[in-house]
Amino acid sequence: MFKKVCIIGCGLIGSSIARAIKKKKLSNQIVSSNRSKITNKRVIKLNIVDDSSADIKKMVRESDLVIIATPLSSYKDVIFKIKNSLKNGSILTDVGSVKKKVISLIEKNIPKNISWISSHPIAGTEESGPDSGFADLFKNRWCILTPSNQTKDKDIKLLELFWKKIGSRVDIMDAKQHDYILAITSHIPHLIAYNIVHTTLNVKKKKDRDVIKYSAGGLRDFTRIAASNPIMWRDIFIQNRENTSKIIDKFIENLKDLKRAIKNQNEKKLEKIFTKTKKIRKEIIVAGQDIEKPDFGRK
Amino acid sequence: MFKKVCIIGCGLIGSSIARAIKKKKLSNQIVSSNRSKITNKRVIKLNIVDDSSADIKKMVRESDLVIIATPLSSYKDVIFKIKNSLKNGSILTDVGSVKKKVISLIEKNIPKNISWISSHPIAGTEESGPDSGFADLFKNRWCILTPSNQTKDKDIKLLELFWKKIGSRVDIMDAKQHDYILAITSHIPHLIAYNIVHTTLNVKKKKDRDVIKYSAGGLRDFTRIAASNPIMWRDIFIQNRENTSKIIDKFIENLKDLKRAIKNQNEKKLEKIFTKTKKIRKEIIVAGQDIEKPDFGRK
Repeated sequence: MFKKVCIIGCGLIGSSIARAIKKKKLSNQIVSSNRSKITNKRVIKLNIVDDSSADIKKMVRESDLVIIATPLSSYKDVIFKIKNSLKNGSILTDVGSVKKKVISLIEKNIPKNISWISSHPIAGTEESGPDSGFADLFKNRWCILTPSNQTKDKDIKLLELFWKKIGSRVDIMDAKQHDYILAITSHIPHLIAYNIVHTTLNVKKKKDRDVIKYSAGGLRDFTRIAASNPIMWRDIFIQNRENTSKIIDKFIENLKDLKRAIKNQNEKKLEKIFTKTKKIRKEIIVAGQDIEKPDFGRK
Repeated sequence: MFKKVCIIGCGLIGSSIARAIKKKKLSNQIVSSNRSKITNKRVIKLNIVDDSSADIKKMVRESDLVIIATPLSSYKDVIFKIKNSLKNGSILTDVGSVKKKVISLIEKNIPKNISWISSHPIAGTEESGPDSGFADLFKNRWCILTPSNQTKDKDIKLLELFWKKIGSRVDIMDAKQHDYILAITSHIPHLIAYNIVHTTLNVKKKKDRDVIKYSAGGLRDFTRIAASNPIMWRDIFIQNRENTSKIIDKFIENLKDLKRAIKNQNEKKLEKIFTKTKKIRKEIIVAGQDIEKPDFGRK
């Protein structure tokens, strides 16, 4: 499919893409560039790339597909370093979780003959780093493409095919819509999980073991999401601050409303809300977006 | 261990206890009482009890151990029905998630020679009903006992042994402490999960498929907990309203603080909080209270 693919940043997502490319034989050569020497050595040792170096210009050169898989706050630095090394007619993409601000940043800074098509694979785990990736991470997950206006249609089709070959289903969406929907389905759930664990640690001191001991009552679920990469999520919230802010306000408004219903012992209202929220679980399972087994199949 | 055990309410928890008793051979006879004819038939057909009937007095009679496993709001009704049928010197327990209000309610209403020891097994799934139970549900999970003052020591020891035999670890705690800690580790996480799914459904209408499609970005985790039994959780929040209320206030305060940090692009503060919350996950895993595999081992 490609002669050379370069992945910038071999963390959970980057290394999973590299593994999937190797598994599906989608490129003659795969290279990566990481700032850390240890990571560059590690990904070669893991045999998930053919070459890896901090010399980002060298790695990018002659690549047909370049994938930025670093935290959003590093994009500016990355794009300034690579813009003059990008191959004529190549495709540039990323895997970032927020689109609006970075799309225009990159659009302004790259040569005209590059097809810049932002990608967002809705996949991941709470782990980070090249050892945590796996080839099947994207299987059955949605990947949203947000092409810039100047992108050639054939390149959009090619990138779409690439994501499909590594297991994803593909949607195309504009940046504004993307950032709003993802704020709801991903960014706010993460922020709320961070906040509940944060609040717990404030209320009960960590040395108090009760929080750990009785976490199977519900809290443990939130600690998984609140164990996600701190830098990555810091960047996501800041980049999507307008949408995040608005939904936080609605969340707080609804929570105060629930608190009032509890105080007034409004059984009917509580039952109605909790019955409505129950239904959506089944629909997510039917849509193949979560496991059917109770308790996520944990034993 | 016992000659006869009676379980009042064979839902997820009640039917799991029945299955565990059969598996570990802890009683010569197990019976249950359910209001619904269908459930009474079903538990006999599933062979998890020896007899089951809506005639609660008949079922309770001659039982050495009676376990109330119905929603909290039904306790008053249950206790008035059974109080004169309880066997002299028997143990009465429950599996409810809130203690303070129900303990005094039952204490006031039962004969003196009954050992009333409230139990709370910190275990469950998002499913309900007799078909959803399984014998290993309590394995490695904590069970908190809250004995009333008049309870004989030997009966506390016997009930402790019972929970241990079906796989639990046992702690003894007073009602006030229990209700406060469980508000943190269980009730608030459930309320927040309900509220995030509720908010999502308000912001995006359910017919809009995006919420379902992209739920793997984080939301899907919350939908599991928000699929829990509506009646059971309605009762828990109302019974533990003072603690719940106080922690909601703290949660909102912290969320507003996070919102400010995002607005001001306070990278350091966000990173610090998200790094702190990451650590607790590992401790929960070390304590055996969650699975070590990433993403709960989902595939």
